[in-house]
Amino acid sequence: MSNDNDEPKDSGMVLLAEGSATSPQGFRAAAVACGLKSSGKPDLSLLVSDSDCTAAGVFTRNQVVAAPVILDRKTLRTNNRRIRVVATNAGNANACTGEPGMAAAKEMQQTAAKLFDFHANQVLILSTGIIGVPLPIKKVKTGLRFAAEGLSKENGKAAARAIMTTDTSPKHLAVRLDTASGPIFIGGMAKGSGMIHPDMATMLAVITTDAIVPSDKLPGLVQEAVNLSFNRISVDGDTSTNDTVLVLANGASGISLERQSYWSLFAQGVKLVCTELAKMIVRDGEGASKFVEIKITGSESEEAAQAVARTIATSPLVKTALAGSDPNWGRILAAAGRAGVTFDQRLVSLWIRNFDNPRLQLVHQGIPTDYAENEALGIFSRPEIHIHLDLGKGPAEVTVWTCDLTHDYVTINADYRT
Amino acid sequence: MSNDNDEPKDSGMVLLAEGSATSPQGFRAAAVACGLKSSGKPDLSLLVSDSDCTAAGVFTRNQVVAAPVILDRKTLRTNNRRIRVVATNAGNANACTGEPGMAAAKEMQQTAAKLFDFHANQVLILSTGIIGVPLPIKKVKTGLRFAAEGLSKENGKAAARAIMTTDTSPKHLAVRLDTASGPIFIGGMAKGSGMIHPDMATMLAVITTDAIVPSDKLPGLVQEAVNLSFNRISVDGDTSTNDTVLVLANGASGISLERQSYWSLFAQGVKLVCTELAKMIVRDGEGASKFVEIKITGSESEEAAQAVARTIATSPLVKTALAGSDPNWGRILAAAGRAGVTFDQRLVSLWIRNFDNPRLQLVHQGIPTDYAENEALGIFSRPEIHIHLDLGKGPAEVTVWTCDLTHDYVTINADYRT
Repeated sequence: MSNDNDEPKDSGMVLLAEGSATSPQGFRAAAVACGLKSSGKPDLSLLVSDSDCTAAGVFTRNQVVAAPVILDRKTLRTNNRRIRVVATNAGNANACTGEPGMAAAKEMQQTAAKLFDFHANQVLILSTGIIGVPLPIKKVKTGLRFAAEGLSKENGKAAARAIMTTDTSPKHLAVRLDTASGPIFIGGMAKGSGMIHPDMATMLAVITTDAIVPSDKLPGLVQEAVNLSFNRISVDGDTSTNDTVLVLANGASGISLERQSYWSLFAQGVKLVCTELAKMIVRDGEGASKFVEIKITGSESEEAAQAVARTIATSPLVKTALAGSDPNWGRILAAAGRAGVTFDQRLVSLWIRNFDNPRLQLVHQGIPTDYAENEALGIFSRPEIHIHLDLGKGPAEVTVWTCDLTHDYVTINADYRT
Repeated sequence: MSNDNDEPKDSGMVLLAEGSATSPQGFRAAAVACGLKSSGKPDLSLLVSDSDCTAAGVFTRNQVVAAPVILDRKTLRTNNRRIRVVATNAGNANACTGEPGMAAAKEMQQTAAKLFDFHANQVLILSTGIIGVPLPIKKVKTGLRFAAEGLSKENGKAAARAIMTTDTSPKHLAVRLDTASGPIFIGGMAKGSGMIHPDMATMLAVITTDAIVPSDKLPGLVQEAVNLSFNRISVDGDTSTNDTVLVLANGASGISLERQSYWSLFAQGVKLVCTELAKMIVRDGEGASKFVEIKITGSESEEAAQAVARTIATSPLVKTALAGSDPNWGRILAAAGRAGVTFDQRLVSLWIRNFDNPRLQLVHQGIPTDYAENEALGIFSRPEIHIHLDLGKGPAEVTVWTCDLTHDYVTINADYRT
């Protein structure tokens, strides 16, 4: 019998920087190069669970939706308790490809299923890369066959590498939850660097766990975790046709989450994995030279705080000021002022700091303090900047993460296809 | 007696590229350098009417509002029939300057009024430049005194130059309306290159006319003209604390607009002046190398079309693709898809062209046509690009103007204050 008062004393959470989607028991992965990336780098990965998984997904809100997104939504509607495989290709998004694109997506799903004698609806697929070019399905099928022969627990990081597009580094980690019943692992991988936006952008993430998680409890948890992580990052304000976050739970640890304290710890763990992956995406923002945390407090509502934070985080003028190490608080206030949220400019305060330093107040009640320009410049010159804006109006707050807008961003995106 | 059927045959409209805010009868201007710009260039201008003007203004919707905006709103509430002066300074926005800023704004207004023995509420003031720095009111007052001695009809273009900040060229023009009762002039000047957005951005515009215009008809006309012009341009998606469009009508032509045909012609003229000034701002967008017209058709409503057009026009990925001459239609569709407007991606069509060439269809029913990549590249390599997206859903349409996002944009805005 579980009992809320029967809380184990030794529960805790350990972050494993070298962990990945195969850190939880019963998951294996493989990565191969099948010729989708002109660079010849690995571009196809398989993630396979040794037993059935409960699963859930959160998908892009874009009106223009890639074939794999349509297919995964359909698959999860018919089966969210016996998922076994996530097959991912990079280099081609299979978006704006019409009926042939949907046929290719189904073929990719069926091919992966047949390799292991699963049903097609036990396979989820992900695609990322260029839009509007037919998916080279023959290459994908060959790649899947090769990958199926190379599955191992050690390939979690290789899989994270194979889903990269303009990413400069693979994104993966795991956490270990230490419970009285034994350890539970939550692992994850993600890709994304451009087009990242609070409303889920061109990013993919796959979260795995060996906990026993009822299928009806997963969707709410994933949505909540996404809202606190991937929906709070912004690199350039654009969103994509393919954005997807998947969570798979195979129960291989044998530990159920019926105990309330276990569920709380688990939910914290999933949020931590999602938040850390989201921050990795921001740090790897296209051309980014600075990681920026923006905290809005004193807001009437969380929605209002989020609107203000997003507008600041996506403002080209704020982002170029950050690139130029210019503590131009006027641009921050002006961005806040156009977020569609009413506030009194005479109550606004603004502070900046690096993570290891005391904060410096730039604005008090809407007008600049007599701060030392050199000190502000020093803070904005460092690679990690924290900006705190208080609206002086209410109790709600929110934190988002973004990066600066640099020459390299323009270079990368002006030349992406050529 | 006016009569709608009594329409003169000879009415017409002539665009005067060398015209300015002093083209209408009874307006004089002056421009001086009073030391607000570190460059030493002219930074203060006066525009004075020889007789009382009916007047109206449209102001920024930003929550953070500069002192001159607050003061002008107040002035126009108490007096919209006897305006005589517009005094403008560049180099300092007098924004986020608190009570001392409001006192400085009032002093600027009063000083200009005293020079001509007007009441303070006959003077409108405009400021543009850096935010959060106290307005050097002594310099401004000295400048106003000098300017008052230099008023002439020839200084309209000089005034347009004195209101520039990061602008690389002055923006001014006039139209002449040829009516059976004689000519009516509408003139205008504007500044703005960064922070331009559909919702009125850091831009100033002053429109003048010698027509007799009832004060109660001006606000509606100005708002309509702004909606079709300044609210349809986007350089970088940011808006400012100081955006203002003013219209002054001094009646010096002696021609009233009671006749419906005259009113229609006049309204067209005001819209044309505003649209041309708006396009000049886009062409002068910070670091802009391309002028881009985006037309959305097939929309259920104009609001929806506008939302889609704005999202495309402010997308950093679309704008960097334009800078790179990359006909990356996938980014255009993906931007449309995140505008918060529902549409069926299978009904979407996309064409591009230069203004002097037949159009090239890139997308038909949501998937790419077999267009020649070289041809598309050729179109996107030219300095003027027209993009037409049809949503295949309804009869509403809208056209907006924007520019590309270049390395120079980052350079200008990363280094603006230093």
